[in-house]
Amino acid sequence: MIIDGRKIAQRILKEVKGKAKKFEKPLRLVAVLVGENPELRKFIELKKKAAQEVGIDFKIYEFPEDITNNKLREELNKITKAKVNYGIIIELPLPKHLNTQYLLNTIPEEKDVDVLSQKSQGAFFVGKSKILPPAIEAVQQIFTEYSIDPKGKLAVVFGYGLLVGKQVSHWLINQGATVMVITEYTKDQVKISKEADIIISGVGKPGLITADMIKSGATVIDFGKDVDFEAASKKAGLITPPIGGVGPIVVAAVLKNLVELWT
Amino acid sequence: MIIDGRKIAQRILKEVKGKAKKFEKPLRLVAVLVGENPELRKFIELKKKAAQEVGIDFKIYEFPEDITNNKLREELNKITKAKVNYGIIIELPLPKHLNTQYLLNTIPEEKDVDVLSQKSQGAFFVGKSKILPPAIEAVQQIFTEYSIDPKGKLAVVFGYGLLVGKQVSHWLINQGATVMVITEYTKDQVKISKEADIIISGVGKPGLITADMIKSGATVIDFGKDVDFEAASKKAGLITPPIGGVGPIVVAAVLKNLVELWT
Repeated sequence: MIIDGRKIAQRILKEVKGKAKKFEKPLRLVAVLVGENPELRKFIELKKKAAQEVGIDFKIYEFPEDITNNKLREELNKITKAKVNYGIIIELPLPKHLNTQYLLNTIPEEKDVDVLSQKSQGAFFVGKSKILPPAIEAVQQIFTEYSIDPKGKLAVVFGYGLLVGKQVSHWLINQGATVMVITEYTKDQVKISKEADIIISGVGKPGLITADMIKSGATVIDFGKDVDFEAASKKAGLITPPIGGVGPIVVAAVLKNLVELWT
Repeated sequence: MIIDGRKIAQRILKEVKGKAKKFEKPLRLVAVLVGENPELRKFIELKKKAAQEVGIDFKIYEFPEDITNNKLREELNKITKAKVNYGIIIELPLPKHLNTQYLLNTIPEEKDVDVLSQKSQGAFFVGKSKILPPAIEAVQQIFTEYSIDPKGKLAVVFGYGLLVGKQVSHWLINQGATVMVITEYTKDQVKISKEADIIISGVGKPGLITADMIKSGATVIDFGKDVDFEAASKKAGLITPPIGGVGPIVVAAVLKNLVELWT
C-alpha cells in the first residue's frame, strides 16, 4: 500500500487549525534561507501555504550565500529574540562555510520547532522535550495511521544525519525496535536491509535503496528520496511515495510543534 | 587475548597525575551516594584510591535511602555550587522513587565528569562536549591499545541505558561502525550477536551473553558483567575480564575528565 501523506497531513493540520485559533493574534513562523537553493525554496513555499491554511503567519528571511558565521549569527539573534517571531526554522543544509550547530544554537528552546539547537537536542535525548523532531512526528503519525507497532521489529535506518537518522534511530530504540544504523561505511547493505521489517531512510542519494533490498511486506519510509519507488512499491507492504509522502507530514508536524510549544 | 584494563588505567592515571600537579591546590572530586549499595560503595572506594594515587582530593557525601527528590536536589545544589568541589559524580542507579535526570541536571557542565546532565548530554550529542562519557573513553582506550578500528565493523550493543548503550552506540556510529542496538524486545539475539565484530554490553544481567553468541575472534567489551567470561574468552579475539577489565579504565577516565574539564 502507498502511504497517503497528504491525508495524514490534513488530519494534523485540522487539529493545528483548531488550536491556532485560540491565540489572540496569529502565531508567526519564520524560515531563514541562506543562498539560492530551489529545493529548499520549494519546501519553504509548502510550509508557507500550509501555515496560511491553518491561520499561522509565515515570514521568510533571506541572506546571501556568502554571509559570514558572525554576521548570520548576529542577524539570527535579532530574529530569534523578536517577540513577534514564535517559531524559527533555519533551512538546512546551510552553505558549507557556515557552522550549522553554532547557528542553530541561537534558537531558544521555546521557538525551536525543528528541535535542533544543542539545548533542544539535549532535552530530546534525555526524554524531556515537549515536542518531537518533525521527522519522528512523521514516522509516529504513519505508524499510528497504519497500526504499525515497532516493538520487537527490526528497523534499519539509512543515514545518521541531524534531521532524520540520528533522532529517529534513538526514538525507535526507545519504542522497542531493534535498530541498525547503516552509513556509508557499512558493508553488506543489501543483506542487512533485506532483513528489515521497517526501513527509514534519510540519506539523499537517489537509487540507494533498490527493490532487492526490501523484504516482501516491509514498511519503507523515505525522507531522502533514496528509494527506487517504482520497483520498491511492488515489494513493500507500505511505502511513502516521493511526492505526497513524508513531505506534507513533516510540514504539518512543524506547524503542530509551533502550536504545541506555545499552548 | 584478555584485555588488561589495569595496564590501560595505569597509563591514563600517569598522564592524569602529571596534569593534576599543575593546579595550585588539589582538585576535589565528589561522589554522592544515596542509600546502602555495597556494589556502589566498592566502586566508590576504587575511585577514591585512584584519585589519591594521582593527587586528587576525594570526598563522599552520603544520604539516606528515603531522601525526597526535593531534599536531595537542595543538597545537590549546595554541593555542586561549592567552589571547592571541582567534579561531581552522582552514583547510579539512584533509589527508584528519585527522578534521576532531574537530579543529574544540578551538575554544571564544567563539573559533570560523567557527562550526564541534560546540558552535557546535549553537548555530547551535537559533538560539542569537551570530554567523552567515561564508558566511551574506556572503549576508545581499548581500541587504541589493541589497534582496533571500528570503521566498517559490525558492532552490536546490548542495552540502551544512560551509562553505556545510549552514548556508546551514538559514538560508534560516528566512528564509522555499523551499529545494532539490542534491547529486551529483540528477537534472534543469538543470531544477531554471532555476526558482530564488536560486542559492547551494558545490561547488568549475568549470563546474558553466552559463548555461542560470540563470533570467533570478536572483540567483547563487557560493562554490565553480562558475559559468561570463562567460555566466551575461548572464542573472543579480545575480551574484558569481569575483574581488572573495564572497571579500572572507567575509574581512570573519570579522573581524566576532571582534569580535562579544568585544564
